[in-house]
Amino acid sequence: MSQVTSSVSTLSVDLGERSYPIHVGAGLLGDPQWLAPYLAGRQVMIVTNETVAPLYLAAFRAGLPEGLEVREVILPDGEHTKTLASVERIWDALLEAGFNRRCTLVALGGGVIGDMTGYAAACYQRGVAFIQVPTTLLSQVDSSVGGKTGVNHPRGKNMIGAFWQPRAVLIDTATLGSLPARELSAGLAEVIKYGLIRDVDFLAWLEARMADLRDLDEAALREAILRSCAIKAEVVAADETEQGVRALLNLGHTFGHAIEAYQGYGAWLHGEAVGAGMLMAAELSARLGWLTRDEVARVTTVIEAAGLPLAAPAAMDEEAFLVPMRLDKKNIDARLRLILLRRLGEACVYDETPPEQLHGVLTDFPRQ
Amino acid sequence: MSQVTSSVSTLSVDLGERSYPIHVGAGLLGDPQWLAPYLAGRQVMIVTNETVAPLYLAAFRAGLPEGLEVREVILPDGEHTKTLASVERIWDALLEAGFNRRCTLVALGGGVIGDMTGYAAACYQRGVAFIQVPTTLLSQVDSSVGGKTGVNHPRGKNMIGAFWQPRAVLIDTATLGSLPARELSAGLAEVIKYGLIRDVDFLAWLEARMADLRDLDEAALREAILRSCAIKAEVVAADETEQGVRALLNLGHTFGHAIEAYQGYGAWLHGEAVGAGMLMAAELSARLGWLTRDEVARVTTVIEAAGLPLAAPAAMDEEAFLVPMRLDKKNIDARLRLILLRRLGEACVYDETPPEQLHGVLTDFPRQ
Repeated sequence: MSQVTSSVSTLSVDLGERSYPIHVGAGLLGDPQWLAPYLAGRQVMIVTNETVAPLYLAAFRAGLPEGLEVREVILPDGEHTKTLASVERIWDALLEAGFNRRCTLVALGGGVIGDMTGYAAACYQRGVAFIQVPTTLLSQVDSSVGGKTGVNHPRGKNMIGAFWQPRAVLIDTATLGSLPARELSAGLAEVIKYGLIRDVDFLAWLEARMADLRDLDEAALREAILRSCAIKAEVVAADETEQGVRALLNLGHTFGHAIEAYQGYGAWLHGEAVGAGMLMAAELSARLGWLTRDEVARVTTVIEAAGLPLAAPAAMDEEAFLVPMRLDKKNIDARLRLILLRRLGEACVYDETPPEQLHGVLTDFPRQ
Repeated sequence: MSQVTSSVSTLSVDLGERSYPIHVGAGLLGDPQWLAPYLAGRQVMIVTNETVAPLYLAAFRAGLPEGLEVREVILPDGEHTKTLASVERIWDALLEAGFNRRCTLVALGGGVIGDMTGYAAACYQRGVAFIQVPTTLLSQVDSSVGGKTGVNHPRGKNMIGAFWQPRAVLIDTATLGSLPARELSAGLAEVIKYGLIRDVDFLAWLEARMADLRDLDEAALREAILRSCAIKAEVVAADETEQGVRALLNLGHTFGHAIEAYQGYGAWLHGEAVGAGMLMAAELSARLGWLTRDEVARVTTVIEAAGLPLAAPAAMDEEAFLVPMRLDKKNIDARLRLILLRRLGEACVYDETPPEQLHGVLTDFPRQ
C-alpha cells in the first residue's frame, strides 16, 4: 500500500492473559504493520457486509501480509441480519475452507458484523482468534471494545452470545468519511454516554465540540474515540463478565432495547434508541431527586446537538416498555434493575425504583 | 425422597475460580443435598431426552429443593440430534419461560445431552450456570468432565462449541443399571483409554476386573469411574483449553471420529469407534518401534474383553480416514497431529508420522 499511516495512538485493555491493544489512527486499515502481529496462523477469514465490502475490502486485502490463505464472507447489511443463521454462514464458510483452530477471523464493518464475527470465533472449534476492524463510530467506541459477542433472538436482543476478546482492535478514523450522518449521530449517543456515566469533563468537552464532531473534524473524532475507548476499557478491565460496574455502560440501553424491540430491530438505529433511553433515565433520575431540571435540560441539549431523537416512538405504550424490560439480562430473579444517574458523570445500578415513578416516566415521556 | 445415599466420594477439578466438584455415589440423583448448593438462583431448566426422561426425570424432580421455578426440555435421543437446531430448542424454551442470567441448566442424560446443555448454558445471555447429571458410563467418565461443550456440523464432529465449566457434576452409579450392554462397553472404551495414556497400573486393574465391570459390580464401577475422573481431572486442570497435554485425552479419537463420520454419526457408538481407533493408534505406535507386538496384543485383549469391535467398518478406505483427519482440531496449519503411545501408560502428541507408516496402518488394519 502507498497509503502511509500518519499517527496512531494505542490503548491497552488490561485483562490478564486476554489483554489486547486498541490502535486508533487515520489510514491504518490498509497498513499491514498493524494487523500482522495479531494473526494466529496463516488462515484468515474476513467477515464483512454488502455495504462495507465495496468501500474497504479491496484496501484491506491489499494491506495483508504475503503468504496467507485468505477467504471472505460477505453478509447482507443491517441489524435484522444479526441472527444465528448469519453466524451459521460464517461457520459453513470456515468448514468449507477446512480452516483449523489456528485460523483468524477479521470483522470488517460495524457492530453487527463485529458481534456476529466475534461469536463465530468464540464457538468455531470452541474458540479461535479474531481481530476487530470497526468502520462505524458506534462500533469503534462501543461494540468493538469489551468482548461482548452474539446475536439477537426473536424474543430479545443479544440473547445468544459469548464473552470473547479480540486479539486486537484496529480503528481507522478515515472510514468515518463514508458514514451516513444518521449513523454518525447514533455513534455520538454512545460517546455522550461515556461522559454521562463517568466523566463530566468529557461531557463538557462534547458540548463544546459537538459541531466539529458532526463536521468530521479529524482531531475531534480521534479525541472522542480515544476518550470513549479509554473509559470503556477502564470499566471493562474492572469487570470483564458484567457482574458489577460494567452494567453502568448500559445507561439508556434498557429503555432503548425496548424501543428497538417495539419498532422491530433496525427501524431505529441502536444509538438513536439509546439516546432516547438516556433521556428517559435522566428524567427518572430527576424524579428520584438526583438530577436538577437544569441538568436534565443539559442532557437534552447535548443529545439534540448530536442529531438524535428526543421522543419515543408514537403510540408506544407503557406495557411495550415493560415486557422487554422484564427480560433484561441485568435483572436478578424478578427484580428490575435500571442504570440511572446519581449526578452528571456518575451512573449507578438501582433496583428500588418505586413502580409509580417508573410508571410516571413511561407514560409522561414525549412520543413522536 | 425415601432413597438414602449410601456413600459418596468427591473429586475436585481445580480450575481456579471455575473449580467444581464431582460427586460419585449410588442414589444421589434424587437427593436434594447434592444439587441445592450449586443452583445460581430460583430458575431451573432440566434438559433431558425421550429415553432418560421416563427413567429418571420424576425422581430427579422429586428430589429438587422447594420453591424453585422448574421447567424442562425433552429432546429426541441420539448422536444425530446433537445439532444447533436442538440447542435452539433449549434457548427458545429459556426465553419462552423468561429465564434470566441467574437461571441454572441441568443436563440429565448422556454425553449428547451434556454437550448440548453445556453449550446452551455457555451462550444463553452470554453464559449461565449448569450442572451435569450424567446417566451413562461414557458421559460419567468423559464428556461430563472438562468443560467441552458443543454440537456437530454436517462437515465435522464438535465443530461448534465452547469451553464452559459446570458448577458441579453429580454421578449416580445406580443409573448404569438401565444402560444397554452395548453402551456400557462403549463407556469402557474411554475407561481403558485413561489406563493407556497415563496409568499402566489402572490398565492392569481393568484387565483383572473387566468381567466384574460388565456384570455391573457396583464397587468395581465406582472405582473405575473415580480413577477415570481423577485422571481426566488431573489432565484438564493442567490444560483447561487444550493447548498441550489435554490433547492426550484424544487417544483413538482422530481415527474414531473418521469412523463415525464415515458411518454417519450414531451408527457406531462413540466409544466403539474410539475402541477401534485406540487399536489403530497402538498399531501405528508399534510400527514406529514404541510398542512391542505383545503390548499391542494386550491392548487388543482388553478392548475385546470390554465387548468392543476390533476392526474398522467394512469397505472404509484410506481416503475415508484421511479426509476428516485433515480437519481435526489438533492439526496446526496443514500438519497431521496424532496421539500415539510411547509405551503402555504414556501417550504423546506426534506430528512426524511418516506418511508411508500411516498409509500402512490405514490399509492393513482389519475391516469387518
